[in-house]
Amino acid sequence: MKISQTSEDKLIHELTKDLETRSAVLVGVGDDCAVLRKNEHQHTLLKTDTVVEHVHFLSEEKPTRVGWKAAARVVSDFAAMGGYPEALMISIILPPETAQVWVEQLYQGIQSVTEKFHCSIVGGETSSAPPNSPIVVSISGSGIVKPENLTLRSGGKPSDLIYVTGTLGGSIHGKHLDFIPRLEEAIWLAENAQATSMMDLSDGIAKDLPRLAKCSKCGYEIDLKSLPLSLNSTIKNALNDGEDYELLFTIPEYQKQILESTWTETFPDLSITHIGELTEHEEDTLEGGWDHFGQEFKSP
Amino acid sequence: MKISQTSEDKLIHELTKDLETRSAVLVGVGDDCAVLRKNEHQHTLLKTDTVVEHVHFLSEEKPTRVGWKAAARVVSDFAAMGGYPEALMISIILPPETAQVWVEQLYQGIQSVTEKFHCSIVGGETSSAPPNSPIVVSISGSGIVKPENLTLRSGGKPSDLIYVTGTLGGSIHGKHLDFIPRLEEAIWLAENAQATSMMDLSDGIAKDLPRLAKCSKCGYEIDLKSLPLSLNSTIKNALNDGEDYELLFTIPEYQKQILESTWTETFPDLSITHIGELTEHEEDTLEGGWDHFGQEFKSP
Repeated sequence: MKISQTSEDKLIHELTKDLETRSAVLVGVGDDCAVLRKNEHQHTLLKTDTVVEHVHFLSEEKPTRVGWKAAARVVSDFAAMGGYPEALMISIILPPETAQVWVEQLYQGIQSVTEKFHCSIVGGETSSAPPNSPIVVSISGSGIVKPENLTLRSGGKPSDLIYVTGTLGGSIHGKHLDFIPRLEEAIWLAENAQATSMMDLSDGIAKDLPRLAKCSKCGYEIDLKSLPLSLNSTIKNALNDGEDYELLFTIPEYQKQILESTWTETFPDLSITHIGELTEHEEDTLEGGWDHFGQEFKSP
Repeated sequence: MKISQTSEDKLIHELTKDLETRSAVLVGVGDDCAVLRKNEHQHTLLKTDTVVEHVHFLSEEKPTRVGWKAAARVVSDFAAMGGYPEALMISIILPPETAQVWVEQLYQGIQSVTEKFHCSIVGGETSSAPPNSPIVVSISGSGIVKPENLTLRSGGKPSDLIYVTGTLGGSIHGKHLDFIPRLEEAIWLAENAQATSMMDLSDGIAKDLPRLAKCSKCGYEIDLKSLPLSLNSTIKNALNDGEDYELLFTIPEYQKQILESTWTETFPDLSITHIGELTEHEEDTLEGGWDHFGQEFKSP
């Protein structure tokens, strides 16, 4: 069987189902980041993420935007745990025809992210690839989360309310390269809103909500008409396009009023929208979203 | 300028020369791993490393061996700091024609490493790539080192003696896929031999010794005839082939006798060889070794 005939989630399940982990590992495969014991006051977060030319960005795209995207995706994952980034490593795979100035501008884009979010580049590597290979930028690193802020995909309970930040859909028109990771907002949610579960939306809510619900051993009901749509986007776009990099999170029902009023005071420029509830009965009612393998190859 | 017209070291210098780092970062770009403050008794090591089809392995190679190599390279870098691996993340970039069984066997190879060296796989991802792209396996993660064992490239002093473990050259005939990272030996050297500097040999001693000497602000003198040669290898092979994954390390002169006698008792099956000295005068006398960009593309 070729990997184009399977789905990304099935492949990862097959590869990782029998893994054992050391005792210092608090959370392994399956959340936005791994979590390791660090010291009394902090846990370490670990994350790796990759963008590939023709898949995550077009060849003619500005390298500063590609660098921003590559690094901001990782920051978004640290945020989704209730934490923040500390140290990043940059691996770049380059065919020989790549212009050095392209690589320098890519690095500028990455550094815009590390400066804005106060983290350091501490290592990485460059490797060659055969002529005409796609450029690959893989960013990995560590972050920090206070134990009391740690918010997993698995913490949701039946009747918890499901929310998203911002608007969904149509990321392909530019947001997928320029999005602002919801770092401050995620830490605020962990500290102030008793968020029970959280993740960032990378593959579309049709793919990501079932993942969160499954981790929480819940089902879900959403009101499709309530989905906050980006300009010129349809419900279908909101469900399937992916790369929104907004937060998907749940809160206990009794937090609704206090969340909605304090949120607006704290973040007047970013909406949150109540889109549904977690339910007792584990059942998938959504289909779609971005899958790396279960579809024909197409450029972004 | 295309990157095929520069050298890897020059490109990395250009990209990273102005980086600032946070205070928790004890060692950033430029050593085998980055080092971060963890707690009173341990530092965290961070590392990322990538293998690319056609560059680091041939398409017809057994995927279990490719997986072993990809993970063992990272373990070798943790070892070179005097530490050990704790948690690894596996990113795999796959063209759609890849067979699922290939990926499963790759994972088996990676797991052979994590089992032998007692570390955990805690995350990663799979991403698609356009048809006929090279497969890319990027492994990153964290390790641990006791502060008193931390051994950097920069710790060498003039008149320190330069040693290598094992034999050098001809790795292409198989060792580059099957090598055993010198983890136990490196920790022993850090604990018992007062090793002043250390790194693992990945690009050939002609490339790596000048790097270590430069970090230590020293020059070096080596006796080429003393280089321990692998079977059927020449001095030229030992200098340039790369991918030996042996340890290059320095010790104070007065440690020579005690090192050589206790080493043989402790590791009777692995040689160490005194090949030269660090000197006061910073000067490069070696040329060659593997460079990802300063040469025409060729398969391994």
